[in-house]
Amino acid sequence: MSSTTPSALERVAGHQQRFNAAFEKYFADLPGDLNGAHLGRFPARCLELLAQLSLRGGKRVRVALLYEAAGLVTGEEVPGLAEAALSLELLHSHALILDDIMDDSPTRRGGPSTYYACREDLPHNPQAALGLAMMVGDLAGFLALRVLFGADLPAASKQTLMDVQLGVTTDTVIGQVLDLERDVLPSPDEALLETLVEYKTSRYTILAPLRLGLLAAGQDLAEHEESLRRYAQLAGLSGQIRDDYLDLFGDPETTGKPGGADLRAGRLTYLTRQLLAVTSGDEHATVKAALGSPHCTPQTVDRIRDIAHRNNVHTRLQTAIDHYARAAADEAASWHRHWNGQAVTLFEQLPLWNARRTR
Amino acid sequence: MSSTTPSALERVAGHQQRFNAAFEKYFADLPGDLNGAHLGRFPARCLELLAQLSLRGGKRVRVALLYEAAGLVTGEEVPGLAEAALSLELLHSHALILDDIMDDSPTRRGGPSTYYACREDLPHNPQAALGLAMMVGDLAGFLALRVLFGADLPAASKQTLMDVQLGVTTDTVIGQVLDLERDVLPSPDEALLETLVEYKTSRYTILAPLRLGLLAAGQDLAEHEESLRRYAQLAGLSGQIRDDYLDLFGDPETTGKPGGADLRAGRLTYLTRQLLAVTSGDEHATVKAALGSPHCTPQTVDRIRDIAHRNNVHTRLQTAIDHYARAAADEAASWHRHWNGQAVTLFEQLPLWNARRTR
Repeated sequence: MSSTTPSALERVAGHQQRFNAAFEKYFADLPGDLNGAHLGRFPARCLELLAQLSLRGGKRVRVALLYEAAGLVTGEEVPGLAEAALSLELLHSHALILDDIMDDSPTRRGGPSTYYACREDLPHNPQAALGLAMMVGDLAGFLALRVLFGADLPAASKQTLMDVQLGVTTDTVIGQVLDLERDVLPSPDEALLETLVEYKTSRYTILAPLRLGLLAAGQDLAEHEESLRRYAQLAGLSGQIRDDYLDLFGDPETTGKPGGADLRAGRLTYLTRQLLAVTSGDEHATVKAALGSPHCTPQTVDRIRDIAHRNNVHTRLQTAIDHYARAAADEAASWHRHWNGQAVTLFEQLPLWNARRTR
Repeated sequence: MSSTTPSALERVAGHQQRFNAAFEKYFADLPGDLNGAHLGRFPARCLELLAQLSLRGGKRVRVALLYEAAGLVTGEEVPGLAEAALSLELLHSHALILDDIMDDSPTRRGGPSTYYACREDLPHNPQAALGLAMMVGDLAGFLALRVLFGADLPAASKQTLMDVQLGVTTDTVIGQVLDLERDVLPSPDEALLETLVEYKTSRYTILAPLRLGLLAAGQDLAEHEESLRRYAQLAGLSGQIRDDYLDLFGDPETTGKPGGADLRAGRLTYLTRQLLAVTSGDEHATVKAALGSPHCTPQTVDRIRDIAHRNNVHTRLQTAIDHYARAAADEAASWHRHWNGQAVTLFEQLPLWNARRTR
């Protein structure tokens, strides 16, 4: 490939780099934009905590999808895209912060979760630490909408973009609540897992950036909705199974999360479902006993991993991951008929990379 | 007063009644509007909990202010006002739900707080109960913006209304965080109390509805901003001191909250500050010991109330409440020069009623 046509991977890295610089600038300007954020120590600390989590790593998948989605229809600079990117990542920070409170997770992106950073700030006041963390999350959600609404765009364009993002916010709440339902009900409906992927991953991580990028670039979505939805569903499913896979088979150093969190939580995932389905006898009993047990130590997790390997759970899951990734790539391939080849190729490749990612 | 010109109080009751009917209809339609809310038991329960809190009482002060603010400039029906009213009250539900989580409050509006309702739903899973309550609050905040953005309005009008509401969301977070700062720092800055009133009450409860109502009615705010802000500050201060007053001197049956919550939390309020300032010797020691003490029983609260009465804390506070209410009324009186007399009169009377309210 010549140096003038960067590969898909190089383009993704470029989006990530440009976005990270823009995100840093956003947080540098934020205290000035928010009247009153300078008025107390805690408001300033809130902004600092939000910036720390937001700027610390993150794959910026949504940002790449967004820019490439616009690239499907135009090679020109697209107004509103920069604000949509900030909006997506702020909404993601919002979700992560609340998620870590709900799951009582100490770490995120290789550092302390916002909740645990607040608890370290206020060791003698856990209730205030909870409140502070909740407020950092709350702020992120509102800033996400504020930054998009502040974009200098024609009214019609702003209306469509905001409609998408406001839909994402409520979809994500529904996804989070379904996630709680999964964790709480003794034997959740099998269909719940699929609905959950639809709301927590497909719509939020894939469909939303796709729609935002295309809409910002002036594309009418009516005749494409079905294909976009199918692509998002397949890629989302593949990505979710990969997430579940990494929970047990991933390297905690790379994922930034301790291994076996789903096991310890007793969570129904594609992995735990598979584990329960393919084991029997003592192995099945060991898995069942570990799920959701406070005694599920790192040693137990190691034992479960061995059982999983012996029963080929890793290869079974990877087969499913690859199957859905391939189906998503096939769906994207149909876009060559009407959209720019370079960007289409990226959407074909993305699920395939995603199927082998390590974090 | 003739039957064709309802009194200010009758108008307020009318706004409240009409709004309550509209709010009920909003919640009846909501599951249909939110794709996916029917997909699981927990999402449906979320909507139910939000509706229960939102529809159970509430003074609807913001709604009355909003409609009367529009009434300052026109007697005609104003497009967008209905959506702005829903938005204000949803944002208020959002704030109450999160507030009750942060304060670990069991009751609200004469019933269980959303947090405690969730804990009753999930007695064996406090972490999931916390998560569910957080999601109900989260949903309320996003729905508040969604309903306003969904209003059928000209783009310019929508832009100004959304700008106000988005400003309110971040101001409110700052207010909440300053509230935490007050509770956590051993001896918070005296100025903090005033800043807190500005962010938690004046801007949110008074200035926002005023601005939304006037903007929706087509009023350019530039030359009125200063007077509106002054009115909001004075009325907000009076209202906040009345809130602090009611915490000790109010009737729990009427306020819907247990008495002495601020004392038990050891919170710096206009009341506790006054109590500490005017007592000495044994009385001062009793007050100091009770503040923030886990041993602050209802009996202790009764004892503190007696001390407060003996030292005329109630009359001192009421004097301040009346002073600021009167100043707010005087500010509103200046609006007779350019705005409708009937509505102006309501803004004159409102702080004076507020100064004597019992809940």
